Amino acid sequence: MTKITPGATIGILGGGQLARMLALSSAQLGLKTHIFSPFADDPAFDVSTNRTHADFLDESALNDFANSVDIITYEFENVPARTAQVLESLRPVRPNPKVLALTQDRLIEKQFIRDLGAQTAEFYDVTDITSLKKTVNIIGCPSILKTRRMGYDGKGQAKITDQRDLEKLYMTFNGAACILEGFVNFSKEISVVAARSLDGLFSAYDICENIHENHILSTTLVPATIKDETAQGAIDIARKIAEAADYVGIFAVEIFVVGDHEALIVNEIAPRVHNSGHWTLGGAVTSQFEQHIRAIAGWPLGSTQRLGAKVSMQNLIGKDCEQWKELLSSEASLHLYGKKESRPGRKMGHVTKIHL
Amino acid sequence: MTKITPGATIGILGGGQLARMLALSSAQLGLKTHIFSPFADDPAFDVSTNRTHADFLDESALNDFANSVDIITYEFENVPARTAQVLESLRPVRPNPKVLALTQDRLIEKQFIRDLGAQTAEFYDVTDITSLKKTVNIIGCPSILKTRRMGYDGKGQAKITDQRDLEKLYMTFNGAACILEGFVNFSKEISVVAARSLDGLFSAYDICENIHENHILSTTLVPATIKDETAQGAIDIARKIAEAADYVGIFAVEIFVVGDHEALIVNEIAPRVHNSGHWTLGGAVTSQFEQHIRAIAGWPLGSTQRLGAKVSMQNLIGKDCEQWKELLSSEASLHLYGKKESRPGRKMGHVTKIHL
Repeated sequence: MTKITPGATIGILGGGQLARMLALSSAQLGLKTHIFSPFADDPAFDVSTNRTHADFLDESALNDFANSVDIITYEFENVPARTAQVLESLRPVRPNPKVLALTQDRLIEKQFIRDLGAQTAEFYDVTDITSLKKTVNIIGCPSILKTRRMGYDGKGQAKITDQRDLEKLYMTFNGAACILEGFVNFSKEISVVAARSLDGLFSAYDICENIHENHILSTTLVPATIKDETAQGAIDIARKIAEAADYVGIFAVEIFVVGDHEALIVNEIAPRVHNSGHWTLGGAVTSQFEQHIRAIAGWPLGSTQRLGAKVSMQNLIGKDCEQWKELLSSEASLHLYGKKESRPGRKMGHVTKIHL
Repeated sequence: MTKITPGATIGILGGGQLARMLALSSAQLGLKTHIFSPFADDPAFDVSTNRTHADFLDESALNDFANSVDIITYEFENVPARTAQVLESLRPVRPNPKVLALTQDRLIEKQFIRDLGAQTAEFYDVTDITSLKKTVNIIGCPSILKTRRMGYDGKGQAKITDQRDLEKLYMTFNGAACILEGFVNFSKEISVVAARSLDGLFSAYDICENIHENHILSTTLVPATIKDETAQGAIDIARKIAEAADYVGIFAVEIFVVGDHEALIVNEIAPRVHNSGHWTLGGAVTSQFEQHIRAIAGWPLGSTQRLGAKVSMQNLIGKDCEQWKELLSSEASLHLYGKKESRPGRKMGHVTKIHL
């Protein structure tokens, strides 16, 4: 298994803020970066050593990219299978692209989680209007219809509150393969951000407590206000996932906490650095971005020690970033992603506050 | 006075590790960077948005550079006067290049410090062998002969331990303008790393205690183990310097602490981010690099709050960087500068440890 040395080049698929922060952390470790993205304005291009602006299915560009780097990683789970296949034939791709097949499809993902003995919401495959009606009947309302693929930040899903108008609703999904999920009445949303090294060592950060607004992460508070046993249970689930997937790098597991007994219902797995882990940048000895690079480089994982009694992270969504000047005057640390244009729902930056 | 907004471009003269860390911090704040350096292999090129590889006296390149950026700063004090002049006619250069004239010449620098009421070592202008002999006679031995210009990390200086062979020694200085300094028998070397904003606000980090080996900084420990009054005295000196120079940005003042009464003898001023402030990167809420960018951007200064009871920073000089793997396994944070080649005395990286 290839281990790189300082001076090597990390290839990164995708050029958004996650790729940008991965590139900045690579630089800290004396590594060069090469960003591959189909979007010319992507903010990671501004900080990378080398840049390829091409489509993910442009095999000639993929070949040149792979030949110019030492290892390859990605900032998003929707890397096309063919892209991964081309790259894998030339250089190590980490995390192993097998995890993409697992996390790109909600049905396969939930089955994988269940097979590990962890709980998920009730779910059924929905292939047509007949199966939708049948499964709504089984699960009851409210329930949630989700596309199996390409959903994020609440996109590609709809809440079903009664059994009328199912045809009309289903039409808006345009025949996409779906699952119907039971609605989880959670008391808290948490996430485990953890890493597994090339040598198979596992290390988790403190559990994050997450608050979403309009299906988009708004705030993360660390440590989560949950029982120690609950935190340990969540970490155990993450460890099982990492080992079963032979995972290398940072990943996040989003989990619902239900009831006073704090039952854990796994929502989804993100095979990449994760927004709920942004607090680690400045708030922990090793950031999730550095940890990811260490893991995929084949290097030892760093300390996940939290700095300060509590750390909070607030996303700046859309026009929130216009407050940059006031935020600079606070005790918090401002991170702006360098995106040209703020749009509603677009993640423009975040603010981290360490409570000593 | 120009204040920039996120999305603007910072032009940086010099492409070494200081420029590299300035570029990384600019990115955190949503700013682009443009590095100008005469050395093609310089490590800051790897992380900057735009790059100019040209000589500092190439006026056409300087013009293009200035026209492509919003404000200009530098990572080193030996920017040629003509370079600063060309750039200043086109864009704001911060800190104000007047400070370059002050810090490029040890004689002018020491006179400036004395005029502020701070103490320096005894010093005399040395213009020829006659004045050297005369001043060695006044100061006595040991004393130190230093070139007025272009000295750093112990370069351009020689200790005089007796009055014989002065001619031979002086020959090695090739007629360069020099000063003779009294030898300071210090108990500690400290530095104040501080910033002044465009609006004239001043903010200092905790005092650094520095250990040099072979005239090169080896270790910084924070906070320095000195009396509170001594620390306050050092900060007062830094504030006076900043105000007298109408300074904008980060600077460092190197000071000797002498005797049980902890007298303060100012050694020199660095008009830039400084090696003894590297601990702030990860060890304080706002790093010196971010603070410099905030200051020159015309933005409010950030919190200088230290994270942890103590913070230590160890330089990796020359072959020290070969220990990178062991250092990655420690609780410390490794920073490598991405330099192609390690040479004796060359700063290759540093390691920061936060003692919680």
